[in-house]
Amino acid sequence: MPLPPGVRARDFSDALKQFGEAVGKEWVFSSEEDVSLYRDSFSPFWHEEEDPVPAAAVAPHSVEQVQQVLKVANQYKIPLWTISTGRNLGYGGSAPNISGTVMLDLKRMDRVLDVNEGNASCLVEPGVSYLDLYKYIQAKKIKLWLDPPDPGWGSLVGNTCERGGGYTPMRDHFENHCGMEVVLPNGDVVRTGMGALPAAKTWQQYKYGFGPYLDGIFTQSNFGVVTKMGFWLMPEPEAHITGTVSIPKQEDLPRFIDILSYLINTGAVQGTTRVFGGGGGGGRGGAAGGAGSAAWTTNLPFYGAAKVVAAQWEHAKDKFSEIPGATFRDGESYRFPLSLEQIDKIRNPVSVGIPNLSFFGGRSEGHIFFAPIIPMSGEGVLEATKVFDKAFADLGRPGRSFIFPQSYFPRSFVTIFTFPIEHNVENNRKNRELYKRLVKIAAENGYGEYRTHTAFMEDAMETYSFGNHSLRRTHETIKDALDPNGILAPGKNGIWPKRLRKARA
Amino acid sequence: MPLPPGVRARDFSDALKQFGEAVGKEWVFSSEEDVSLYRDSFSPFWHEEEDPVPAAAVAPHSVEQVQQVLKVANQYKIPLWTISTGRNLGYGGSAPNISGTVMLDLKRMDRVLDVNEGNASCLVEPGVSYLDLYKYIQAKKIKLWLDPPDPGWGSLVGNTCERGGGYTPMRDHFENHCGMEVVLPNGDVVRTGMGALPAAKTWQQYKYGFGPYLDGIFTQSNFGVVTKMGFWLMPEPEAHITGTVSIPKQEDLPRFIDILSYLINTGAVQGTTRVFGGGGGGGRGGAAGGAGSAAWTTNLPFYGAAKVVAAQWEHAKDKFSEIPGATFRDGESYRFPLSLEQIDKIRNPVSVGIPNLSFFGGRSEGHIFFAPIIPMSGEGVLEATKVFDKAFADLGRPGRSFIFPQSYFPRSFVTIFTFPIEHNVENNRKNRELYKRLVKIAAENGYGEYRTHTAFMEDAMETYSFGNHSLRRTHETIKDALDPNGILAPGKNGIWPKRLRKARA
Repeated sequence: MPLPPGVRARDFSDALKQFGEAVGKEWVFSSEEDVSLYRDSFSPFWHEEEDPVPAAAVAPHSVEQVQQVLKVANQYKIPLWTISTGRNLGYGGSAPNISGTVMLDLKRMDRVLDVNEGNASCLVEPGVSYLDLYKYIQAKKIKLWLDPPDPGWGSLVGNTCERGGGYTPMRDHFENHCGMEVVLPNGDVVRTGMGALPAAKTWQQYKYGFGPYLDGIFTQSNFGVVTKMGFWLMPEPEAHITGTVSIPKQEDLPRFIDILSYLINTGAVQGTTRVFGGGGGGGRGGAAGGAGSAAWTTNLPFYGAAKVVAAQWEHAKDKFSEIPGATFRDGESYRFPLSLEQIDKIRNPVSVGIPNLSFFGGRSEGHIFFAPIIPMSGEGVLEATKVFDKAFADLGRPGRSFIFPQSYFPRSFVTIFTFPIEHNVENNRKNRELYKRLVKIAAENGYGEYRTHTAFMEDAMETYSFGNHSLRRTHETIKDALDPNGILAPGKNGIWPKRLRKARA
Repeated sequence: MPLPPGVRARDFSDALKQFGEAVGKEWVFSSEEDVSLYRDSFSPFWHEEEDPVPAAAVAPHSVEQVQQVLKVANQYKIPLWTISTGRNLGYGGSAPNISGTVMLDLKRMDRVLDVNEGNASCLVEPGVSYLDLYKYIQAKKIKLWLDPPDPGWGSLVGNTCERGGGYTPMRDHFENHCGMEVVLPNGDVVRTGMGALPAAKTWQQYKYGFGPYLDGIFTQSNFGVVTKMGFWLMPEPEAHITGTVSIPKQEDLPRFIDILSYLINTGAVQGTTRVFGGGGGGGRGGAAGGAGSAAWTTNLPFYGAAKVVAAQWEHAKDKFSEIPGATFRDGESYRFPLSLEQIDKIRNPVSVGIPNLSFFGGRSEGHIFFAPIIPMSGEGVLEATKVFDKAFADLGRPGRSFIFPQSYFPRSFVTIFTFPIEHNVENNRKNRELYKRLVKIAAENGYGEYRTHTAFMEDAMETYSFGNHSLRRTHETIKDALDPNGILAPGKNGIWPKRLRKARA
């Protein structure tokens, strides 16, 4: 196993011993067999020297143990890479960015601390998965929905820290979290929002608290270890229906998107939609399968009272009818609660708040995501389509670029391109090069990634360069203040602590 | 005029000269007549020594001038208190927290930089008021709504920096802002979110950007000077209707609130509601006037297609009908766009996105707000009512405490109590004492303020004390890193820079 950068073997051995005293010997892993489980088996650096190899892993069970682990890491200047549960597929798995990192594995902190039906909220630890919380809620017959992302094994806290999205009206996970507990590198346990009131009654109800609202700086960052997080849940609605709209002509795309965004921005459509071009779609989500000869198709999910969702779908049809040849198809229709039989047959469980693993049906290859944000407007989508079509043609990537804009977040679309990762060094090198060039081309055209794979964090942050990198400079100023020894995930998303900061061109 | 703390008269005179070189002599104010305009004429310290008196004011016209002003302030260690336009009534006006402060007045930076109809967004400078933006949008016949708070003269940027709220579905102003430009004390101009991409196409569309999401730390804080802010606007909906629900029995309050919160949390009710007890209400907002013999009343605002809002109101009636004796009254009903005649007659213009000054009709006394957050649940409201009824009885405040919960934010209620401020030293002293005790009592029972008056910032922050004040300690760590000379609003919301940090008990 590699050593942490700049740490001597004997010191590291002492540190491992102290980690053991903190969490129990059996929860410190340093054998090659154990540690290799944290590597990315579909790393874009497969069989290359750059492939990061952790030095060890330590799995605390409590906030106090996290504090102890941080203390030891500070003493020996050992970099820690925090993970919890789930796989982070497409974005680098559980693997760290630099060899010699010690994995801070929070999966043992898996307590559902509270589910409050009256306030429609919950408080969980990082090791709680969407599946765990769903089971807990079902067992207690609580009439609340959670909002799962594609794979249900993920951590609510982890997904939200990476600013992931789902499918129901609560789909923007950061927006629908409420309150955090964070252990800072100096061991301070900070509760954000109303949690800073010792007797707090609205920690999971009011996000901002009093004074600066800190939560955002603990997402996609390396400033602290989040040990608790609150979430807003949605009271079970009466009904859910999905409608599908298709239009026959390519050139009506801008108007099609403008109507869709009007419906989203006025609150008529409250779940995630996807826009499929040509004969595409029918894949994950599956809401637009069989679009046939349509040029463009989208799914419209509605949630609420039966009479309201019916009126919303009628309203949407009214709006889209102005496009010549628009056709409409009624999709799934549910009244809640569902019977177990109904749940078994459901095509797209995440859209009704049921976490699952169907996303992985039949998949075995590795892949990485390139996920830029594009405008949610007709003109904006058209322009982005041209830019990426040209980029892929220029770069010689096989196949055409399908932009399938998805409304995981309000007011903009995420488009996700998939790059294969193979057990083939030469192909991986080519794909990495292509990915890096795509990051640059996208940025030159005004599109930035909302999140990226561990291997490309430096490239992505490099493009967020306004004011001679004033944003990154600010991140690093905060990093140095909160983590003076630079122990937490040095280099994550391009943020380096002073002692490891590289000379930049 | 007082001098800034620790600054010699001669140095201050040099500083004023340099401010003049930065912004033009005519935009530096140091005569008593000019400077007194920035004082609070209804200060709770009226005619007492503690009443803060600014030393001067400086009004830059551009980002470059803001940078210059900060440079001079750093050189002489002069505290700056940033304001823009509007009055901040009830929370301290434009006055600073300490005497000798120089006002950084941004009202000349009043450009509407962009209103984008396709993306339903805008980008404005701090000096742009809700009235300004409304006029701009009307003049260009753009079909977008903004979300005004009660008085329309306020600044969009200023209100959002203090985390204010309005009345339409875009009522949580922080949640519906998108992207900032901030000048840091060191002069760095930082663009947050997608604005850090020099060619950004989604600065006003996607909030979070890449890496840590910083925006929250520039609200209710003293870490930077916000010079631009983007906002999501709402496309003009087809219709708006309001319904009023009343119930006759006090004891049905919990069920009443639970149904209301169900409707809010499932997205059926998307605007701000108020819950009025007894014969109360009918005041600002005015949505529940004439409740008569009802024990509890609330207004339900609906926005969207005509058929959708009708269905939502029917759905709400279905739900509330389970409470014995519930009665329903149709309220205002509009189809958009409105004629000028209709606009003139409208009772509650803010609820349809029209900023105005009717809030001040007939008011002349001074007042300060005490604004704790309480849960949005039946049980939670009942408990809060008991706590505050008892507190007011114990403290001997005249009159009974009406808690009128208001849903300015998702998932919780704000309750606003008004304290009179008089031109009477003795009464003001009593009221200050009462306010301070109320802050403590509220906190002991788990309720914290979402924002407070300048005079009570220290008291409020003192209650957010979890982990031996770990949150405040974190704020001050960030403060020292970003503002090492402690020039921006030292002490705002209880956050002091190192050089002025007081020994705390």
